[in-house]
Amino acid sequence: MQELPLLEPAGGQSVVPCCPPLTERPMSAAEAETAARMFKALGDPVRLRLFSAVASHEGGEACVCDISDVGVSQPTVSHHLKKLKEAGLLTSERRGTWVYYRVEPSVLAAMGQLLAMPSAA
Amino acid sequence: MQELPLLEPAGGQSVVPCCPPLTERPMSAAEAETAARMFKALGDPVRLRLFSAVASHEGGEACVCDISDVGVSQPTVSHHLKKLKEAGLLTSERRGTWVYYRVEPSVLAAMGQLLAMPSAA
Repeated sequence: MQELPLLEPAGGQSVVPCCPPLTERPMSAAEAETAARMFKALGDPVRLRLFSAVASHEGGEACVCDISDVGVSQPTVSHHLKKLKEAGLLTSERRGTWVYYRVEPSVLAAMGQLLAMPSAA
Repeated sequence: MQELPLLEPAGGQSVVPCCPPLTERPMSAAEAETAARMFKALGDPVRLRLFSAVASHEGGEACVCDISDVGVSQPTVSHHLKKLKEAGLLTSERRGTWVYYRVEPSVLAAMGQLLAMPSAA
């Protein structure tokens, strides 16, 4: 899997959300590819709980060592965090022994925008 | 598959969104089951385009007969619309020959709330 095109490769500077609100006009095939990849990454209950664990962790970041209460093994946690990173939903940084994961806020914002309803609906 | 628990079974009255924002606290297993089902339903590019086609169609509803430009056969369109309905993202109503699908706004709102970032992030 590759990094999502709506993300700048590193540093988290400018970000162009991939798509207009779903209710505005039919999505193009290319837009749908990008957005479906994000939705799919959150479409697994364990992965979603891990994403939520990272997103809600103190300081907005967490390593595998911080996450132990989801009921899956550490290698499984690592595997899922990697998948979330590949989908562009998390960024990571190695510090010493551990890799720390952080939610990419611009991606959440882009997904939220996709789901926005028109105010006059 | 069954209807999502956050939806009242019919009529679209009161709706209790399933979950707090992902960044607020770790999700419970039950919350994650519900939310992951919605995300998974949108995690397929063709299904996402069809969902967008319905959501953006005139009057906020569409039948299979209205959707022909996604490049898949009518049975495939029907199949995907059914899946979206089972996930609670669309409601449907038969009128004459056709089943008309409509986006369930409260579900979009609940998903949007899940993805909301804290304002002080």
